[in-house]
Amino acid sequence: MATQTHLEQWHNLAQQLRIDSIRATLEAGSGHSTSSMSAADLAAVLMDKYLHYDFENPKQPQNDRFVLSKGHAAPLLYAMYKAAGIISDEELLSLRKFGSRLQGHPVPILPWVDVATGSLGQGIGQGVGMALAGKYLDKLPYKVWVLMGDSETAEGSVWEAFHTAAYYNLNNLIGMIDVNRLGQRGQTELGWNTYAYVERARGFGWHAIAIDGHDLNAIDRAFGEAVTISDRPTVIVAQTIKGKGSEEIENMNGWHGKAMKRDQAERAIEELGGNHNITIRVKKPDIQAQPALLGLAQPLQLPSYEEGKSISTRKAYGEALRALGAAHPDVVALDAEVSNSTYAEDFAKVYPDRYFEMFIAEQQMVASAVGLQVRNYKPFASTFAAFLSRAYDFVRMAAISRADIKLVGSHAGISIGEDGPSQMALEDLASFRAVWNSTVLYPCDGNQTAKLMEQMYDREGIVYLRTTRMNTPVIYSADESFPIGGSKVVRSSDQDQITIVGAGVTLHEALKAYDRLKTESITARVIDLYSVKPIDTETLYQAAQDTDGKLIVVEDHWVEGGLSAAVSQAFVGIETPSFYNGPKLQVIQLAVRDMPSSGQPEELLHAAKIDADAIVTAAKSIIKQPVIR
Amino acid sequence: MATQTHLEQWHNLAQQLRIDSIRATLEAGSGHSTSSMSAADLAAVLMDKYLHYDFENPKQPQNDRFVLSKGHAAPLLYAMYKAAGIISDEELLSLRKFGSRLQGHPVPILPWVDVATGSLGQGIGQGVGMALAGKYLDKLPYKVWVLMGDSETAEGSVWEAFHTAAYYNLNNLIGMIDVNRLGQRGQTELGWNTYAYVERARGFGWHAIAIDGHDLNAIDRAFGEAVTISDRPTVIVAQTIKGKGSEEIENMNGWHGKAMKRDQAERAIEELGGNHNITIRVKKPDIQAQPALLGLAQPLQLPSYEEGKSISTRKAYGEALRALGAAHPDVVALDAEVSNSTYAEDFAKVYPDRYFEMFIAEQQMVASAVGLQVRNYKPFASTFAAFLSRAYDFVRMAAISRADIKLVGSHAGISIGEDGPSQMALEDLASFRAVWNSTVLYPCDGNQTAKLMEQMYDREGIVYLRTTRMNTPVIYSADESFPIGGSKVVRSSDQDQITIVGAGVTLHEALKAYDRLKTESITARVIDLYSVKPIDTETLYQAAQDTDGKLIVVEDHWVEGGLSAAVSQAFVGIETPSFYNGPKLQVIQLAVRDMPSSGQPEELLHAAKIDADAIVTAAKSIIKQPVIR
Repeated sequence: MATQTHLEQWHNLAQQLRIDSIRATLEAGSGHSTSSMSAADLAAVLMDKYLHYDFENPKQPQNDRFVLSKGHAAPLLYAMYKAAGIISDEELLSLRKFGSRLQGHPVPILPWVDVATGSLGQGIGQGVGMALAGKYLDKLPYKVWVLMGDSETAEGSVWEAFHTAAYYNLNNLIGMIDVNRLGQRGQTELGWNTYAYVERARGFGWHAIAIDGHDLNAIDRAFGEAVTISDRPTVIVAQTIKGKGSEEIENMNGWHGKAMKRDQAERAIEELGGNHNITIRVKKPDIQAQPALLGLAQPLQLPSYEEGKSISTRKAYGEALRALGAAHPDVVALDAEVSNSTYAEDFAKVYPDRYFEMFIAEQQMVASAVGLQVRNYKPFASTFAAFLSRAYDFVRMAAISRADIKLVGSHAGISIGEDGPSQMALEDLASFRAVWNSTVLYPCDGNQTAKLMEQMYDREGIVYLRTTRMNTPVIYSADESFPIGGSKVVRSSDQDQITIVGAGVTLHEALKAYDRLKTESITARVIDLYSVKPIDTETLYQAAQDTDGKLIVVEDHWVEGGLSAAVSQAFVGIETPSFYNGPKLQVIQLAVRDMPSSGQPEELLHAAKIDADAIVTAAKSIIKQPVIR
Repeated sequence: MATQTHLEQWHNLAQQLRIDSIRATLEAGSGHSTSSMSAADLAAVLMDKYLHYDFENPKQPQNDRFVLSKGHAAPLLYAMYKAAGIISDEELLSLRKFGSRLQGHPVPILPWVDVATGSLGQGIGQGVGMALAGKYLDKLPYKVWVLMGDSETAEGSVWEAFHTAAYYNLNNLIGMIDVNRLGQRGQTELGWNTYAYVERARGFGWHAIAIDGHDLNAIDRAFGEAVTISDRPTVIVAQTIKGKGSEEIENMNGWHGKAMKRDQAERAIEELGGNHNITIRVKKPDIQAQPALLGLAQPLQLPSYEEGKSISTRKAYGEALRALGAAHPDVVALDAEVSNSTYAEDFAKVYPDRYFEMFIAEQQMVASAVGLQVRNYKPFASTFAAFLSRAYDFVRMAAISRADIKLVGSHAGISIGEDGPSQMALEDLASFRAVWNSTVLYPCDGNQTAKLMEQMYDREGIVYLRTTRMNTPVIYSADESFPIGGSKVVRSSDQDQITIVGAGVTLHEALKAYDRLKTESITARVIDLYSVKPIDTETLYQAAQDTDGKLIVVEDHWVEGGLSAAVSQAFVGIETPSFYNGPKLQVIQLAVRDMPSSGQPEELLHAAKIDADAIVTAAKSIIKQPVIR
C-alpha cells in the first residue's frame, strides 16, 4: 500500500504532466493533450517508483526501456522529460515547432527515444524486440514498459507482438493499455469494456490486470504485481478518461488531437491545481551486471564458391550469415517460419541462442529487429521477399527510427517458378528504394552474396538484400570485391555497341545473350548492377558514352520503380555534381509487365520477355536507332 | 447424427480428395499434398452437406462463398473441383504447369476462385468483406466459409479479421482452422493446443468449437452448430494430422510443400483405398431472394468549387464520394478510424448503411474492400496515405485477385506539417506505381479531385488517389475534364524555356515559381501531372521538345519511384511505339531527400527544397545548361 505522501506526490506529478501537456499543445496550436491526460497517472507512478533509467546515459545497457506506442501522446512524454529534469520548460514549449527536437510524434533525435512511434500498433512489437534482447542476449534484469492506446489494439500487429511475447515468456515486458474509450473519430470497438481486453490478452497467454487508470493505489499495485510475474508478460488494462482533469472536455468526443483555446487551457490548469514545478529523480539501474558475452569474435571466414559451380544466392546467404555469426557475436537472425527456404536455418542450427523464430508474423519480425538493434545487436531478418511487403509500414517507421537493420528477401521475382504470383516479389526493389537512407542489394552469385553480406554487417540504415530461389552459376572468383555503390562490368571491349544492365537472375540471361550476340558480331557491354541503391552512376555513364547511349535494362521485377527506374533516374537527373553528358539515352526496359502464372522458371522468364531471347531481340532493335550526340 | 451411408460417402470422398492431391502434386513434381490431406475431411463434409453453390453460375449472388485461405493447399481445392464435376482429371493433373488454370496457389483465373490466396492470413479478412456484403448489403442468407491453416493465425491480420467480424456480428461467416501442428519448418507456436486457439477466438468474440478434424461425425455436428449461431461468427478448430492417410508421412516434419516420390505415392494411394471416381452434386442455393436494393441511382451531381476559393483535396474527396454515393447505390466506403480527417465521414453521415468503420486495421480495410468487390460493390477505402503502407501486401494480393478497389490516401507528404514524419506518406506513389495494373492519381484542387473520382468509380484494378491535408486554391473551373492518363498544361507559351512538372501540392508551388520567373523574363511551361500512372507521355514529350529538354520535376515524395521516376522512365524508354525523339533530356528532380521533421507546411516545403524558391533556383540553373539536340 502506497503511503499518503506517495499518493500525493504522484497526484501532483500527474497533474503537472497534464498541465504541461496542455501548455505545450496550447503553445503549438495543435497536438494531443487529451490523450496525454488520460495516461498521466500511469506515467506518474511509473516514473516515480518503477522505472529504472539513467537519463544521463540513455544507451546504458542496464536501463529499463519505455516505449510510448501511442506516439500521439508525445506531449505527455515530453512533460515526463521535463519532470525528470532533462528538458527545460522553454524546450517543452517548443513542441511541434520547426527545428525543435520535440516533434509531433517522438523520434530518436531525442536521446531518450529508442524508436519513432506514431504509426500505431508498432511500439509493443518493438518492445518485444527489446525484451528479447534483455532476456535472451543481454541477460540483464531490465524491464521494457510499453504504453499503448486502446484504439491501436485494433492493429493486428499488436497481436503478433502478444503471441510472440507469450511464446518467448517475456516476463520482462510490461504493457499498459490506456483505455480512454475514444478514438480519433468516436468510440473504439470495445469502449470501456476492459474485461474484453483482459480476455483477449489472456487468450494470448499474457497475465492481465484490469484497473481504474486514475486510481493511483491501483496503478501502484498493478505495477507491483507485474514486476513479480516470472513466467509471462503482463498487460495492465487501465480504464481512463480522455482529457481527465479538465471537466469541460473530459470524456468528450471531438477532442482528439486538438489544442485547447487559451481560456479553456487556463481554466483547465486552474482546475488541475495550477502550474507546479516538480522534478523527479528517476531511479538509476544497478549497473553492476554487464550484458552477457555471446561468444568470442573469430576472424571472418566467408564461404567461397568455385567458379562454374552452381548455388542459389539464398543458400549463399545462409552460409555467409553463419560465417558472420562466428565473426561477430552481435549478429542475430530472425525468420518468419521459412528458414528452410531462406536458409536462415544455416545460422539457426549453429547459433540457436541468437536466432529468433517469428513464425508467420512479418510485421513482428521487423519490429523485433528494430527492438534488438536498440541494444546494438545486428539483426538479419529474412523471409520470402514477397512477404516483406507485409511489413512495409514497419520498415518505413524503422527508417524514421534511424534503425540499423538488415532485411533479406528470398524467392524474388518470377524465376521462382511453379508457386505462382502470390509468392513472387515483383515490387520489392521499388518499395525498398523508396525507404529513406536505404541500401538495396541484389547479388547474382554466391561469392558476390557473401561479399555483400560482409558489408551489410556494418552498414547503417535499412539494408535490403534480394536473393533468388534457383541455383545460378558462380561467375565471380571468391576474391573479387563488390563495394556497395559499385557495379561490375562483366563483359566489355572497346567496340561495344550496346550496354546490357542486369542484376541477380537477369544478369545470367544477359550473359547468355552476350554470347549469342557475339556470334552475330554484336558486341555488348554487360553490367552487373548488384547495388541498386546507391547506384554506380559513373560506370553507367561511361558505358552509355561508349555505346552511343544505347542501354537495355533487364529485371525480374515490375517495370515501375526497380532497376529500370533507378537507371533512368540516374541518367536524367542533373542535380548531382557530375551528370551524364553523353549521347542521347535510348533505353529498352525489359521487365515484368503482365501478371505471371505458374510454370518452370525458364518458361516464365521467356513469357515475360526478360530472358536471353528477349535481350537479343532488344539488342538488335536498339542497334538500329540513330545516335544523337 | 449422420447416417452410416453419409459417413461412408464422406470418408470415400475425403480419401479421393487426398488421392487426387497426391496424384496432382506427383505429376507436378512439387506442391502441397500433406497440407491438403489434413483438411480433406473438413472439405468433404462441407461440400457434400453444407455448401450451397452453383458451380455453373459462380457469380450468382445467392451462392455461398468458399475461401481457401491456406492457399498452398490448392491441390485440395482442385480435387474438390474435380469431385464437383467441373474440372476433368486431365486438368487436375496439369497442376502448376505453364498455361494451366491450376496454379500453385489459387487465382481467380478460375471462375470459382473469388480471391487469390497464398500470402497467408488474408483469406479470413476477405471473407469478412464478403460476409459484410451478405449481411448488410445483399441481405441474403449465404454463408462464407473460410479454411485457414494453423500457421497463418500468427499473422496479425487474422485477428483484425476476427475483431471486425465480431464487431459486425457476422454470423454468416464460418472459419475453420486446420490445426495440423506443423508449419513449413517445424511445429507451430501452439502445436495441437486447440484449447489455446479456442481461447483466442472466444477472447475476440467468436463462437468456437474444437473438434477432431478427422472425426466425420464431429465435423458434421460442428458445421451443424455453426450454421445455427445467430449472433456471432463461428470458428471450428480442427485438430488434424498433416499427411493424414499415408502412414509413412503422417505427422512428420519435412513434408511441407513436397511431392511424394512415385513409389511413395502409389503406396499412399493404395492405403487410401485406391483411386475413386466420386462426383458430388453440390447443393445449389435458393435463388428466390434477390440482393437488397440499396437505393435508386440519381444523376451524378459532382460538387463544384469556385475558382480562387480554397479547399483541401481530402475535403473534395469526401464531398465527391457523397455525390457518387447518390448516383451509384453500389458505392460503399470504408475507413480506418480517421474518417473525420480523410472526410470519408461526409459519405458515412448520409449513407451509414453503406459505410463500414474498420477502426485502426488497415489490412482488414483493404481485405474488406476486396471481399466487397467480389459481390460487385465499388469500395472506396481511405486512411492517411502513410498508413496504407500497412496494407501493402494486401494491395499486392488484391492485384493478383484482379480486384477492383479504390484506395484513397490523405495527408500525403511533408505538407501535412506539425505531425511529423510518421504521418507523412513519402513512398506511396512509388509503392502504388509498383502494383500490377494500378492507377495512381494525385489531384491538386477540388474540381480536379471530383472529376477524377467520377472516373475512379468505373476504373478497373487497384486505383489509388493521393489527397492533401492543407487547403489549396481552386485553379480549375468545374467544367474542365481530367481524363485518367492525361495531364494539364497549366501555363504555356510558344517561347517556353523550361518545363516544370508538378502534381498536388507542388503544382501550386510551380505556379508561384512561374509568376516569379516571369518577372525575370523566364517563361516556363507548367504541367499538372495529376495522372501519375498511366502517364501522359505525349504532353511531356511535346514540352521537352519545346523547352530544349529542360525539365524540373517537383514532388512531395522521396526522389525514388514517384513523379521523377515516372517522368524519367517515360522519357528514356524506347520500347513503346512512339518514343521521345527531342533534345537531350536534362532533368532536375526536386524531391524530399532528407528526413523531415515537424514544422509549418511552408517551412517544411522550403527546407526540403520543393517550394517555389527551390523551383526558381533550379530553373535558373537549368537554363544555363547547353542544349544537345
